[in-house]
Amino acid sequence: MSTSPVPDVQPATPATGETPLVSVGVLGARGRMGTEVCRAVDAAEDLELVAMVDERDWLFNVADAGAQVVVDFTRPDSVMDNIRFCIDQNIHCVVGTTGFDEQRLATIAEWLEPKPDLGVLIAPNFGIGAVLLMRFAQEAARFFPSVEIVELHHPNKVDAPSGTAARTARLVAAARRAAGVPAAPDATRESDSLPGARGADVEGVPVHAVRLAGLVAHQEVLMGAAGETLTLRHDSYDRASFMPGVLLAVREIGHRPGLTVGIESLLGL
Amino acid sequence: MSTSPVPDVQPATPATGETPLVSVGVLGARGRMGTEVCRAVDAAEDLELVAMVDERDWLFNVADAGAQVVVDFTRPDSVMDNIRFCIDQNIHCVVGTTGFDEQRLATIAEWLEPKPDLGVLIAPNFGIGAVLLMRFAQEAARFFPSVEIVELHHPNKVDAPSGTAARTARLVAAARRAAGVPAAPDATRESDSLPGARGADVEGVPVHAVRLAGLVAHQEVLMGAAGETLTLRHDSYDRASFMPGVLLAVREIGHRPGLTVGIESLLGL
Amino acid sequence: MSTSPVPDVQPATPATGETPLVSVGVLGARGRMGTEVCRAVDAAEDLELVAMVDERDWLFNVADAGAQVVVDFTRPDSVMDNIRFCIDQNIHCVVGTTGFDEQRLATIAEWLEPKPDLGVLIAPNFGIGAVLLMRFAQEAARFFPSVEIVELHHPNKVDAPSGTAARTARLVAAARRAAGVPAAPDATRESDSLPGARGADVEGVPVHAVRLAGLVAHQEVLMGAAGETLTLRHDSYDRASFMPGVLLAVREIGHRPGLTVGIESLLGL
Amino acid sequence: MSTSPVPDVQPATPATGETPLVSVGVLGARGRMGTEVCRAVDAAEDLELVAMVDERDWLFNVADAGAQVVVDFTRPDSVMDNIRFCIDQNIHCVVGTTGFDEQRLATIAEWLEPKPDLGVLIAPNFGIGAVLLMRFAQEAARFFPSVEIVELHHPNKVDAPSGTAARTARLVAAARRAAGVPAAPDATRESDSLPGARGADVEGVPVHAVRLAGLVAHQEVLMGAAGETLTLRHDSYDRASFMPGVLLAVREIGHRPGLTVGIESLLGL
Repeated sequence: MSTSPVPDVQPATPATGETPLVSVGVLGARGRMGTEVCRAVDAAEDLELVAMVDERDWLFNVADAGAQVVVDFTRPDSVMDNIRFCIDQNIHCVVGTTGFDEQRLATIAEWLEPKPDLGVLIAPNFGIGAVLLMRFAQEAARFFPSVEIVELHHPNKVDAPSGTAARTARLVAAARRAAGVPAAPDATRESDSLPGARGADVEGVPVHAVRLAGLVAHQEVLMGAAGETLTLRHDSYDRASFMPGVLLAVREIGHRPGLTVGIESLLGL
Repeated sequence: MSTSPVPDVQPATPATGETPLVSVGVLGARGRMGTEVCRAVDAAEDLELVAMVDERDWLFNVADAGAQVVVDFTRPDSVMDNIRFCIDQNIHCVVGTTGFDEQRLATIAEWLEPKPDLGVLIAPNFGIGAVLLMRFAQEAARFFPSVEIVELHHPNKVDAPSGTAARTARLVAAARRAAGVPAAPDATRESDSLPGARGADVEGVPVHAVRLAGLVAHQEVLMGAAGETLTLRHDSYDRASFMPGVLLAVREIGHRPGLTVGIESLLGL
Repeated sequence: MSTSPVPDVQPATPATGETPLVSVGVLGARGRMGTEVCRAVDAAEDLELVAMVDERDWLFNVADAGAQVVVDFTRPDSVMDNIRFCIDQNIHCVVGTTGFDEQRLATIAEWLEPKPDLGVLIAPNFGIGAVLLMRFAQEAARFFPSVEIVELHHPNKVDAPSGTAARTARLVAAARRAAGVPAAPDATRESDSLPGARGADVEGVPVHAVRLAGLVAHQEVLMGAAGETLTLRHDSYDRASFMPGVLLAVREIGHRPGLTVGIESLLGL
Repeated sequence: MSTSPVPDVQPATPATGETPLVSVGVLGARGRMGTEVCRAVDAAEDLELVAMVDERDWLFNVADAGAQVVVDFTRPDSVMDNIRFCIDQNIHCVVGTTGFDEQRLATIAEWLEPKPDLGVLIAPNFGIGAVLLMRFAQEAARFFPSVEIVELHHPNKVDAPSGTAARTARLVAAARRAAGVPAAPDATRESDSLPGARGADVEGVPVHAVRLAGLVAHQEVLMGAAGETLTLRHDSYDRASFMPGVLLAVREIGHRPGLTVGIESLLGL
């Protein structure tokens, strides 16, 4: 692949003082996340925003503009077409759109096979704090008999619990199973309880969802053992908090050929 | 006051240097709360522990020992007999036993009618911090569109939510109704949610119950409006936290003839 | 009072279906708070934004535009002239500018003497949650041997502790003195401590100031007694949180002649 | 290894149904921690408490009783003699006594040289939650421009900040230096601040110490980046919380020849 049209997006330390900029195109550029991405790419000295594409724009614009990396925050029903197009055009993809299952991931991996230098990163969450919280919760899980999750969001949220909280619960539950931790102690008697008081059951981990005017997006993992508790809390006040993770992915994807799920590996976790 | 059958329990500032001690009997003296009460009364300089009575002891002991005030932490099925006995013997009562309803309270008030100087105080919670939290939550309720409660306890607790949390929710709900606050905003769609995620519904106030090894007894009232939240949290680490409220009631009951419910009025709230 | 030159700003429930709007002028209209105030007044159905004035604009504009109430978020060095002007023009004032001391307040009270119907409200904080927190902290102070304050803000803040935290500390300290609460227990030995570890001393109340990227404005009052703690926390995520307090003041000031300090009395606290 | 004078303390899965108990001696057995250790060892099915030694007892008792492992919670001025004795007697040591510096550790390592099978573990903190918190804080440090620590303890504590908080700060500071993280943003102006408000400076990390009646031992590490914060909190309510770490060390020390500092490696961190 010495003739590879796939550029190395990492801005190598320039020997002669010049820094090659990475050209970035944004799909879903007028959406809430896309708008933030455009702003963040524009503000980064080592990146150049070369194309902003939204629903009624030509997808070819990103290729015409010479984008080396595309960031996709669109919709589940269009994201697969976008990825297919980018792979055909030898453009790396950083994808924050939701709706991926095993089958979709397998399809993308297949598309990538003939292009060994090309990278696609799919991340359910670009918040570095949120990803760290999940990782720490998994690591700590085996040391604590009890674990519960409380997530707190603004009242316009339609799902409960949040996707991040549900995912954290599943990861923690898996870590507990792997370590042979028995079910958490709980003497609650149904006859003395109100329905819902003990939260939603996600693979044995109770998850509580608070919806409150004034809040943004917050998550707490509480773990307890005899005489002590460990609480991990992430507060997200602003979509800006996802941008360091997105930019990190944009800068790293040229060095990560193949399909990558989540930003954990980029963080060295 | 020589003809009064009801002693004034308040240790008046002594004119001659001597402090008249208040004589206290404890019913349920070997229970978990009773044991703490005995210890606290014993340690108080202005109180004298004159009788410790438990299930198989003679109730007459408290009268024989000259108790001016009785503290009752027994059981719902014996507390009414105890109170009846104390009223007959002209002994003031401070009662922490649970299980009182409107009918029981009316009965006690009736018993007290012929004894205008005698006082009975029934309190569902002697924790000053817990009582303050309830009061503040009621006062703040009308200023916030959203309110939810999270209570956290050790995993041996059988009821969920806790009685204190349920009571706080009802008080807050009543304050909201009185002020005409509409239902809290909540876009949660059942189709996107897991059962229980949004907690138990107590008169429109969601209450979430966490059970965790290592915890003792904790309660948080969260209130939210555009751009801000107010959180009131009470942590109870030890039964010792109820003793200042119990002792306050013991000292004050001689000045509070008739039936008093809750320690709020003693706190000047 | 038919000859009064001072209009009643309260939008009385209209008998005939018409609602008299209150005319509002904003001084410091292009500042961060002023911008929010203009937006909030504009969005309120019972208020009309008639003048937006900033540094290089004519102050007479607010009078010419017929403002009944002026909201002032300007600077300490101009606010006294603004208030003097408004009083001369029979315009009520709602003032959020800082820098008031006893002498300034006395001067304003003097200016108001010949105008018995005119109202000026000076508030160091229009956040209803923040004001409630201060009030609750004062009420609870006498029940707890220990009290400390932790305030947390974005790292661009130049003062430490925040004005609100310092004011809360002084109010709590006064409440403790009034109730005869002795100094909080503290075994800290200087020889075993690092300078600053125990925070700033504000009339005997330790105040700790955290500065952290990502934060906005947060304050916690922690109170402790044997076996229990009570924590009051206010989180302000957005300047929008001050607007309900500002609008309340604009609507009420016509009914509050003379000088009012703080929004507490408007909240019925 | 049949000639080894050093017994393997790990209770190997017994081939024939019998479980060899590990014999444990406790030094400082009547102290607050020692008492808890005796209770915990006694309650553990795979351990046998063979000697309880305190200040005026003969140290030889632990050898006479056949202790394979000694747990030492004594005092800085006696712990070195105790360790020397145990090494001479081929007894593994688990040490929670404070006061170790580089020189003391070097001395112990030297003593251990002729005994390649013998293990000594010195841990400043046996709380698994506290150790996890420190580890997570170190791992997360490089991702956040800001970090501060708030520790909260009962008012009888003489040092401020706590040893654990100071150690956490130093570990976090080292991780930041290693990753090239610049000083945290902080616009605080001395002229607008009170002394102590910004806490103690531990290698650039502000540490705040709260002392409050009712509290036990609590620590919070707050990390912030644009639009988000990550908070790690450990609450220790009871000395019981240190026992799982002590027992883990007792069970593992037979497999960890040489000098081990901290329980991190035993936790697989």
